[in-house]
Parts: sequence; structure tokens; C-alpha cells
Amino acid sequence: MAIVLGPNRYGKAETRLVRVTRDGDRHGLTDLNVSVALSGDLAATHLTGDNAGVLPTDTMKNTVYAFAREHGVATPEEFGLLLGRHFVSTQPQVAHARIRLESFGWERIGPHSFRRAGDFVRTATVDVAASGEVQVVSGISDLTLMNTTDSEFHGFPRDRYTTLPEATDRILATVVNASWRHSSEVTPFESVKDSLVNAFVTTYSYSLQQTLYAMGKRVLADHDGIAEIRLTLPNKHHYLVDLSPFDLENPGEVFIAGDRPYGLIEGTVTRDDAPPALVEWYL
Amino acid sequence: MAIVLGPNRYGKAETRLVRVTRDGDRHGLTDLNVSVALSGDLAATHLTGDNAGVLPTDTMKNTVYAFAREHGVATPEEFGLLLGRHFVSTQPQVAHARIRLESFGWERIGPHSFRRAGDFVRTATVDVAASGEVQVVSGISDLTLMNTTDSEFHGFPRDRYTTLPEATDRILATVVNASWRHSSEVTPFESVKDSLVNAFVTTYSYSLQQTLYAMGKRVLADHDGIAEIRLTLPNKHHYLVDLSPFDLENPGEVFIAGDRPYGLIEGTVTRDDAPPALVEWYL
Amino acid sequence: MAIVLGPNRYGKAETRLVRVTRDGDRHGLTDLNVSVALSGDLAATHLTGDNAGVLPTDTMKNTVYAFAREHGVATPEEFGLLLGRHFVSTQPQVAHARIRLESFGWERIGPHSFRRAGDFVRTATVDVAASGEVQVVSGISDLTLMNTTDSEFHGFPRDRYTTLPEATDRILATVVNASWRHSSEVTPFESVKDSLVNAFVTTYSYSLQQTLYAMGKRVLADHDGIAEIRLTLPNKHHYLVDLSPFDLENPGEVFIAGDRPYGLIEGTVTRDDAPPALVEWYL
Amino acid sequence: MAIVLGPNRYGKAETRLVRVTRDGDRHGLTDLNVSVALSGDLAATHLTGDNAGVLPTDTMKNTVYAFAREHGVATPEEFGLLLGRHFVSTQPQVAHARIRLESFGWERIGPHSFRRAGDFVRTATVDVAASGEVQVVSGISDLTLMNTTDSEFHGFPRDRYTTLPEATDRILATVVNASWRHSSEVTPFESVKDSLVNAFVTTYSYSLQQTLYAMGKRVLADHDGIAEIRLTLPNKHHYLVDLSPFDLENPGEVFIAGDRPYGLIEGTVTRDDAPPALVEWYL
Repeated sequence: MAIVLGPNRYGKAETRLVRVTRDGDRHGLTDLNVSVALSGDLAATHLTGDNAGVLPTDTMKNTVYAFAREHGVATPEEFGLLLGRHFVSTQPQVAHARIRLESFGWERIGPHSFRRAGDFVRTATVDVAASGEVQVVSGISDLTLMNTTDSEFHGFPRDRYTTLPEATDRILATVVNASWRHSSEVTPFESVKDSLVNAFVTTYSYSLQQTLYAMGKRVLADHDGIAEIRLTLPNKHHYLVDLSPFDLENPGEVFIAGDRPYGLIEGTVTRDDAPPALVEWYL
Repeated sequence: MAIVLGPNRYGKAETRLVRVTRDGDRHGLTDLNVSVALSGDLAATHLTGDNAGVLPTDTMKNTVYAFAREHGVATPEEFGLLLGRHFVSTQPQVAHARIRLESFGWERIGPHSFRRAGDFVRTATVDVAASGEVQVVSGISDLTLMNTTDSEFHGFPRDRYTTLPEATDRILATVVNASWRHSSEVTPFESVKDSLVNAFVTTYSYSLQQTLYAMGKRVLADHDGIAEIRLTLPNKHHYLVDLSPFDLENPGEVFIAGDRPYGLIEGTVTRDDAPPALVEWYL
Repeated sequence: MAIVLGPNRYGKAETRLVRVTRDGDRHGLTDLNVSVALSGDLAATHLTGDNAGVLPTDTMKNTVYAFAREHGVATPEEFGLLLGRHFVSTQPQVAHARIRLESFGWERIGPHSFRRAGDFVRTATVDVAASGEVQVVSGISDLTLMNTTDSEFHGFPRDRYTTLPEATDRILATVVNASWRHSSEVTPFESVKDSLVNAFVTTYSYSLQQTLYAMGKRVLADHDGIAEIRLTLPNKHHYLVDLSPFDLENPGEVFIAGDRPYGLIEGTVTRDDAPPALVEWYL
Repeated sequence: MAIVLGPNRYGKAETRLVRVTRDGDRHGLTDLNVSVALSGDLAATHLTGDNAGVLPTDTMKNTVYAFAREHGVATPEEFGLLLGRHFVSTQPQVAHARIRLESFGWERIGPHSFRRAGDFVRTATVDVAASGEVQVVSGISDLTLMNTTDSEFHGFPRDRYTTLPEATDRILATVVNASWRHSSEVTPFESVKDSLVNAFVTTYSYSLQQTLYAMGKRVLADHDGIAEIRLTLPNKHHYLVDLSPFDLENPGEVFIAGDRPYGLIEGTVTRDDAPPALVEWYL
């Protein structure tokens, strides 16, 4: 029996990069949060503190900024690929690079003026192996959606601890956190987002699980290049207030927006012939 | 010399209310966070624990929900007035009620489907005195704006600790937190927001103070019914990255978005004949 | 009628300073978050963008770091006084400096090893006028306390919207946010904290207001040099779970820790002969 | 080719439970945040909205509270096992239950008075399969540690983007997030925490990776019943301030505590004969 080093990686997290492009008076804006994680032959630094294979995380930060200048930032996915390929190709001890990117939206309000859109964050997780293999996953987080009707929940099993009444008309609200794995070219982000939102709006729901599956299925049905999608949907409960002590009816009008606890529904929708993932990519 | 009770108040904070209105298949949605604070003759509970004058904060919460059903929620300001007048008129020991409201925006994406807009929070602070006097303050928070040029900062004094170079072209970014006091009818919120955004976009800036004043002045110039406005503007620093160690120029393209520290600019713009405030209303 | 500039100030917020002192192998550690705000004759920069009177906020940050080296950091209050006096005495256009400090606690776990104590934050707000007058306020935030009994709440008025039952044994939990104004020498922080905690523990409570007053009174009774104290105490509700649907009693054992809404109790305890405050200092 | 449902689970997250035990005047206090996730035969609700196999998440919440009364809460791990076994044994469609628990510390300050300790959170992740197999993982999060010396970092590779100077004396600070898998009886939490802290304090460090490995190795060396441990250690950078523009030296005294970016070091230390994990358990 011996104590040994297991899986490990390291990197620089949350390098905040804002890039301005200038076309005369008209500017463009990209706002990213970039995290780099490298793995490979890193035993020496763990066991003896020998750093001969440890590219400084400070260098990763510098590389992010320098690459933004040298190569520009076309999309989060492309920028991630550039960075990942750089690290595995220039550092022989690195077997694998994972680049995580968050992209914050800004709406144009003038030729060189912008307003932060706070309705969601676009994400990308790019894995590059030294072998040259890559995996590109795109995602969205913090997109909050609500249907004020067309949602029911009943027919569930009841045990000794069940008090929930059956519901034939309830609010369904969630925060969409989704990520999808590309099997070919990267599908445009907006198109996937539209599929997600559209499926949420048009699905008459008997459970948030049903809505989750409908959203994932829609994305795959609409986009051939996506192999699978993972959704994590908190059920943001809205409780109908009992106004009867005040001699008032409450026909689905006044709700408490609850904080905790919340339901949490997680699921994957996939193609049965999807190529295997290069590495685990769920958060 | 004696130890005595000074100013005090109490109430229920952050009652989360979602109200759905139903016009056939088409629903409306209001999403509020309501805080109530009452003051008046509250010495007994402090000194002896006699609660004869302490309307429970639980009752305040119930009142928020019941009023939403009985009276609806036209605007945050009107809902705040309803609540404030109720407490001062029904509780003889209450001399003053302050109602603070946050209103979260949702965009329609279907007849009964909505998507949370995260770009700002609308606020209102309503004060009602037992005498009948009222003060209505409206506001906005968390609206993030950026100009990528048309901003300079120079001509400042230099002392022993000054190392900042003079800037003739910099990013100017801020998070607008503003509140304005009405002297007559409540001015529509969107119109004030438009004035703020417009002044930010169109002001060529030599300091964030200058932009702050321009924003406040624009709001007052555009709206006769606003007596004064208070702005709190963090200067969200964007630092130009020094890429010279990598033999790269950086002509205003690649920036670090800093977290801390940040500049903080606070100021009031007022009419010289503004009626006095009923009570202090700055946050 | 004219639109004019009202009260204003500006500065650098949240400069994060860690200072290590070295006495051979044994080190000391101070961890501060320092915010500077200056006011005075600042009309020019607001009205015309003339920055001749605007010491850069970057300089304030530099000054914080340089002063930590030149003068050390004895206590937050003393460091604040040093900084405040520096700004009003070296910048003629500055009439008033406010320095806000947060001090984070670390426990020693070795000669040069420390562990962050997360149980509260020590605060100080120091105001220095160009005239030389000063005001020193000390405080504490985020100190969470709970009594699991010796708390009642009854005898309150009931109106149409009151459903709360009278309670003769409840949990009383709060987060202590307090600040106290010194009228002479700065009282040692730990002594004031002990008074607050002790009064919380030993007060049989009929309302959180009563506990608040007892805490404030204790601080003033124990410390002659404190003129007044302001407490902001959220009532962190713990709801007894109704287990009767499961044929279980719940004799004060199992509680839901609620998030929102919460009660909010605010009050001042003062000496009737307290000297007037130099400036408003709550918040 | 078909679109199919992949891995999925659902449950109730963040049920906040406070349990008081009463031994006469002397009370005990347990404060937990409990999350339940169930998986198994859940295809029907996803595909058709048939909820016959979907025990309501509301029931999970009720079960948490009822079990706290019926069985008490000895340790987070035991409470998690009780809950997990209950769900897999009473719901035939459930193949696997995962219970995640956070335990918040409170220090006694009186017979029935407590003060929240904010220095770390104790965690547990308990997996129970319908087969009866269990996996128990314990952990700690948010424990912030700092060595003000005995840390170096040099000998690293340099590429075109490397500007970091070699360091022979730097601050090493991190937030310990660790979880360890038990192979036999659950090892007392405090003992593992002591090993982690002790190894951090006593390791002369040439890289945070070396410290990570030393911490993990120490835990395994000290505790036979732990099969493996996973550590996630952010490198909380403290930057020495360049005071030379002010003609001041800075011999390791004055530092900027940085927010972002930060290094992130992740690694596992394991026994080479560790039994395989029942399921993936890293966060």
C-alpha cells in the first residue's frame, strides 16, 4: 500500500478580458471571463516542488491578453481553441488543456456606447488534447424564464410524508443552465438559445422534467451538429398565498417567490449514435 | 446624564411578491421586493418589552400580499403609497411609514410567458407621515453602461503619491445607481431612464463627475416634476494591458476589467427652488 | 429657477491592504478594506471637467499602501485618522475626508501562519474636517447570534391582516450590525463586542426591540467614552415546522431557517448629554 | 438515429434545517442545509409527463424535517445515510439517492446561546444505491489559510509570455475546499481538519501543488479509513506593492490582496489499493 498522486490539474481562473475593436468611430466590444486549466506530467511539483514543468499561471493570464491582441476574439469557442492548442503544442509536459469562458452581453446604445445586458451569460468549455483531439461545449447560464400557466403537477406517488396537493394550474419558473456538445461545426449560439426558449414557451407541462426533455429534444432536433445537451433547471417555486384568513379569494394571482428550498431537475438529452465524449464536461 | 432611546424603526424587509393578472389567455406579471419600516411611539417595547404598539412584522407581510389582491399593483410608487397610508392611518402609534420597493423586469415572450430582464432594477422609496404628507422617490440600480472612448482624465493635481498618467482616451464604465425625488406627479420611469442613458452616451467626458452632473442635469431639464436627483456612480476601471513585454502594441484594444478598488463618485443635482425633503432619502 | 450641484463627494473604494509585520520568525497580520471619500470645492470638475482640484482616486489608493509602510497600521481607527488628516491638510480644496475601514480577523495558527476567522467584521468610519475636528465611529458587522429560548413575543395589536399566534417560547436569532460613536478616547473594540454579546445572551426577551435596547444600553453603561450606538438587527426567523401531518409532535425542536422576508429592527441608544455628531454616520 | 433521454436525476435542494436539543436548560444546536437527488426509472415523466414515479420534492423536504424529529441528527454523514436509505428502500423506482449536506458551525456562548462560527463549512455527500451499497464522502469548504513566509516559487519554464519574476519569499494563501472518501468507518471530522491545517502550516512550500499534495498525504497517513482525498485550492494572490515611486522600500510588508484572476490548483491524493468509488463524487 502506498499513498500516490491521483488526477490533478492547475491553471489561472477568471482572467477578466475586455476587448474593444475600432472601425473608425464605431467600436465593438467583447467581455470575457477566461479560465485555463492544464494537466499532464505534473508529478514533480507535487512530490518535490520541482517546477520545471509548471508554466506559471501568471503566464496563462498574459497569454490570454496577448492572444486577444494578436488573434482577436471571434467567438468564445474559437478563442478557447486558440488558447488550448497553444498550451498543448508549446508545453511538452501538458497532455490536456481545458479553457472555460464566460461571455457577458452588451447591447449597443451608440457608436461606441454599450449597456450591459444582464439576462444571461454565454459559456464555452473547450478541451484540447496533446493528440490534437478537441471537444467543444457551448452553454448558457442564468436565463430566467416563467410560464404563468400551462403547467400542472399531479399523479405523483404519495407516502407518509407527502402533503403536497395536486396542482392543475401553477406557475413554472426556472433558471436555464444548459451546455451542449458539438459533434461538428459549432452551431450559432443564438439559434440554440431560441430553441431552448421556444420549447419552454410552447410546452404544456406536467412536470419540469417534461419541459427539460422538450427543451433538450428541440435543441437536438433543430441542430444536427449537436451530439447531446445537459440541462440543470432549478424549479423556482412560486407559492400561491392563502388569503382566506382575510376573506379574500386568490385565483392564481398573488404568489410568494420562494428562495429556498428549490427543486432541482437535471438531465441529459442525447443522440443514440452520439460519438463518445473526449472528457467529462458537465459542471 | 442618562442613557435614552434615540431614533428607531422596525418592519418587515424583503417580502417577495409576484402578481399575475389574467386577461383571458394573456397574462401580466409584476415582480416586487417590498420592505416596510414603521416609526412612532415605540419606546415601550424597547424599554419594557410591552408590545401593545408593535404591529407584527408578519402582519406587514400579510398586508403586502392582501393589498396586492385587493388593490392590484399599478406602479411601485402607487403600491407604496397605498401601503404607507394604510399603516399610518390604522395604527395610531405610527407616525411615519417608509415603504421601499424593488421591481424586477420581465420581458414578454408569449401570451403567458416571460423572461427575466437582468439589466437593471427599478426602485421606489415612499414615505408617508401620519400628518398626511408624502414623499415619493423613484430610482434605478444596477444599470451598467460603458463608453469605449470620448473620455479623458487629466489636469489633476499631483502629489508625492501620484503616479497616474494623464489619459486622453480611456474607457468610461459605471453602474448607474440613481434616485430622484418627485415634487409633483410621478414622472414615468422610462422617460427618466432614457434621460440618464442619453446623457451618458452623448457627454464627452473629462471626469466621471462631469458625466454624473450631465446625467442629473438632463433628468431635471427634461422633467419639471423632479426636484432633485442623487447619483452614485462607481468608476469601473478598465486598465489597458501593457503588452510591450510581448513586443505588441495595445492601441486601446485589450483591457483588464478590474474588480477592486474602484472609484466612487456621488453627487446630487437639484433645483435651487426645490421644496425641502420630508425626510432624508438617500440610501 | 436654476439647476445646481448639490452635496457631492468622491474617492477610492475598497482598497484591499494586507500588512505583514516581522519580528524575526514571528509575523503579525493586518487585513483591511479601505475606502476614502473626499468632499469640498469640487464644482469645477462637475460643471466643466476642470480637474485642478481632483486628486486622483488612484493617488488615494497609493497613499493607503504607502502609509501602511510609513506609519504602520495600529488600529483601523488610527489608520483612518492618519489618512483623513493627510488628505484635508495637503489638499486645500478638500473640506472633509471620510475614511471607511473594514478589518478582517485572522487567528494565529503558527509563528507565521494564520486562519481567517469568519465570525464578524470589525469596522471604523473616521471623519476629519479641514478645521481639524474629527469624529470616530467604530462598529461590528455580520456577527450572528442565537438564543434558542428565553424569547417571547405577544401582547401585540391585531388587525384584519394579523394571523401570527402569540409566542411564549421562540428562537431569537440576529446578525449584529452596530456602530458606536466615541466622545473621547477610542474604547477597545473587544470590550464593546463583549458587552453586545453579553447583553444578548443574558436578556430575557419579549421583543427584539427590547434586546436591541438592552445591548445598546449595556455598551453605554460599560463604556463612558461612547456617546451613542446604532444597531441594525435583522430578525432571522426560525419557523417551527408543523409535523402534525406526520403524527409527530414538535416541542421546539425542528425549525426552518428562513431566508426572506425577515424582520428588521433599527434603533439608537444615546446619552441625553451626548455632544452632537460632526456628521451623519449611520449606514 | 434517435434522440433519447440520458442520465438524469431530480430532488429538493437546500432545505434549511435547524434542530434544537434540550437537556433541561442546556440546549444543543445543529444547523444544516440538506439537498436530496434521486435517480432511477424516471423516463415516463420526461417523455410523457406521467408522474407515477416522481415522489414530490416537497415530500423530500418534509422527510428531512420529520426525520430530524424522529431520528435526530447525530452527524451529517449519519443523517445523510438515514435519508438515502429511506428513499431507495421506499420508492421502488429509485435506484440511487444522493444526499448533500452542509453543516454550519455555532459556538456555545451560554446554556442556550450560540454564536455562528464563520470560518468554514463542514460538508458531506452520501450516496446510497438500491442494492444497499453506500459511499460516504466528507469535506470542508471555505477554510482560509495563510502563510506569510516559507513559500517560494521558481524554476518554472519561461516562454514568450512569461514575465513573472522568480520568488524566494512570498505569501501563500488559499481557501481549503476538500472532500475525502471513507473506505470504512467515518473518521472524525475534526481530526481530518487538523491534519489539513497542520500540513499547511508545517510544509515549506515551493509550489501550491506541493502544499496540496502534502495536505492530502498527511490526511491519508493519519487516517487509515480514508481511501482518497480531493483538494481544490485557489491561490489567493497577494501582490507586493511597488513603493519605489514613493522612495520607500517594501521588504515583504505591504501587499495587495487580489480578487481576480486567481490560480486554481486541483488534485487528488489516493491509496494505490483504494477500493473503487461507487460513483463520481467530486464537486
